[in-house]
Formats: sequence, C-alpha cells, structure tokens
Amino acid sequence: MNLPPSLEILAQHLKKFPGVGTRTAERFVFDLLSWGKEEVLQLANTLNKIQESISFCSCCGCLQEDQRCFFCNKTVAAPELLCVVGNMKDVYAIAATGEFQGRYHVLPKLLSPLDGILPEHLQVKTLLNRIEEEQIEEIILAIDSTIEGDATALYLKETLSPYAKKITRIASGVPMGSTLDYVDGATLAKAMHSRS
Amino acid sequence: MNLPPSLEILAQHLKKFPGVGTRTAERFVFDLLSWGKEEVLQLANTLNKIQESISFCSCCGCLQEDQRCFFCNKTVAAPELLCVVGNMKDVYAIAATGEFQGRYHVLPKLLSPLDGILPEHLQVKTLLNRIEEEQIEEIILAIDSTIEGDATALYLKETLSPYAKKITRIASGVPMGSTLDYVDGATLAKAMHSRS
Repeated sequence: MNLPPSLEILAQHLKKFPGVGTRTAERFVFDLLSWGKEEVLQLANTLNKIQESISFCSCCGCLQEDQRCFFCNKTVAAPELLCVVGNMKDVYAIAATGEFQGRYHVLPKLLSPLDGILPEHLQVKTLLNRIEEEQIEEIILAIDSTIEGDATALYLKETLSPYAKKITRIASGVPMGSTLDYVDGATLAKAMHSRS
Repeated sequence: MNLPPSLEILAQHLKKFPGVGTRTAERFVFDLLSWGKEEVLQLANTLNKIQESISFCSCCGCLQEDQRCFFCNKTVAAPELLCVVGNMKDVYAIAATGEFQGRYHVLPKLLSPLDGILPEHLQVKTLLNRIEEEQIEEIILAIDSTIEGDATALYLKETLSPYAKKITRIASGVPMGSTLDYVDGATLAKAMHSRS
C-alpha cells in the first residue's frame, strides 16, 4: 500500500504486536482514523504515561505503578505461602483463579544454558532473603511445563530445600474439560503417573 | 485481571481495534512492556503526529499528509479516467493492483435512507465539478457490492449520465482462483448473467 508516510510508520509500529501482520496493522491504522481526535491523543498520553509510571517491584518482581506494588502492599490471608512464577503475566493468571491467597515472586529468567542463562541469573539470593524475612512455610513452583521451566523448577527445588520447610510444584495432567483423545501422549503419561 | 491502573486504561484503548478482545488487548499490553522505552515513545509520538498531519483531500477525498494529496499531485498515465469509490481504503486496494492509471474520487458516504443518508450527502456537485474541470472521459464506479453500494451506483449512474461520456461499474462474478461449489448462489447467478 502507498499510505501517507506517518501512517506507514504507525503501521510498522503496530506490526510489532503479537499476531499482527501487515494487513491487520493496516486495518488498525484505518480504524484509528475513524476514532475521535481526543481518543487518539488519550492513547498517546497513556503510552507516554506507562513509560514513566510502570516499573518492576524490587521485592517480588511484579509490575508496579508509581513505585507502589499492588501485590506487596496487599494484605493476604496466607502470607506464609510463596508462589514462584517465571513470568510476571503468570501472576495475573493465578490471581484471577482466586485459588491462591499468598505472596508472589517473579523469577527474572528461566534457566537456559544454551542461551547463556545460568543459575546466577535467577537471583536466588533475593528469594532466600524473602523466605527468611517473610517466614515462608511453603514455596509453590508455578513454572511453565517446558524444558526451561522443568530445569528451573528442579534447580530451585534442590537449592531451596535446605531453607524452605516445604517445596511443591503445581500439578501437570489433563486440562479440565478436555477429552482424552485430544491430549498428547506426554501429558497423558504424566497424568497416569501422578494419579491420586 | 488486576493490572495496574494505567495498563488497564491502555488495554481498554487497544480493545477498540477491530478483532481485538480483552485477552488480545492484555497480550498487547504485556508485549508493549517488553518493547524498548524509545519504541513506545515513538509510537506515542506517531499517534500525536497523525492527529496534526493527516487530513482528507478537499478535491478527491483521499488521505493526505501535511495538506499534500499523493493522488492529486501524482502524474498519471490516464487522467481522463475517474474511479469513484465508497471508502478511502479502497483507493489503496485498487492502487495496489497496478491495473488503474487514472484519478480517484472518494464518496463521503454510501446511500442508506434508513440511516438518514440521502442523495444530498453524496456531494455529487464536487464530482460534477471534477468531471468538467478535469475533462473526464470515463467514470468507473468501484463501489461495494452491497445494498448501499448498489443503490449508490445506480443513483450515480442516473445522475451523472448527462455529464459523463461513459459510466461503467466494476464487474461482479466469481473471485479468481475460487471453485464454483464454494461460491454463493447470488454471485454465481450474476456471473452467469454477465458472461462474456
């Protein structure tokens, strides 16, 4: 397409979003032209604002706004539980279930030696400090069930065991509401093995 | 999700894009957090910029930047052809085919009496001025094949016929590369009728 230069630049920016290709980006651009002037400026202002106000909590690693972490400042029913996740998105997914009433800890990375991510990048020291200071009783590893996730969970379990009373990992098995013929072999084998 | 307030506002803005629901908007927000600071500011600046620089050409109705219309200022091989479209997006779609070398004219609306869009909203006067001033030989109606599009094409054909030497409408029929069993009945009937 031969869009005016600044719209072409806008389309290039929008293409960076996941799942957005050239066609979708162009649709977004044309849609944006139909928005009110005020709405577009509000979007621009919000983008400017998040650059200033959003950061990562130095204690738990979650997103915080204006140096105030929602999760650290919240009174929770079970502060002796610490849920360790591999990505800050996961905190919101777990919080949305309403199943967990403890604290969160976001790892900076997951182990991946081939990509140069070694145990020292996990900042285990911060985690150990929290275990001691917050008198954590149980650490729940809610880490992706991928090769990197498994390696990280295994490493943390070994490293933290002398310091934590109890370390558990979230269950793997067949997803709720699924039929067995659509579940892959590895998941099914794991589900059989971990039956209860 | 319990996102920080300004990210929640950002997600609400992104949800306005076509095909973007709550989940996708949240994915976009998290993706944006992984962009560099500079990139986010550039996006914000581009949004601010288009509000100032992009407008509609008073002559042809196409998008223009900094009061300069790409289509009006371009030297074309067939300036005696005028392609009338119902939406400024369509101009880019037709230009991308490389099949048309004339000028464009974007209608402000398509006729839709039930929505209160009547012939006077089509601004036929502007179109008539162009036919005279630019010595147009043929008007090509490249208007959507919808009820509103058909009504508009019919109306324009009748209204413009005393002033234009030739008025044509783009062909309707089976899309290129399609198999007949997937083509709907109305399209197939039209294709049979307009066989050549």
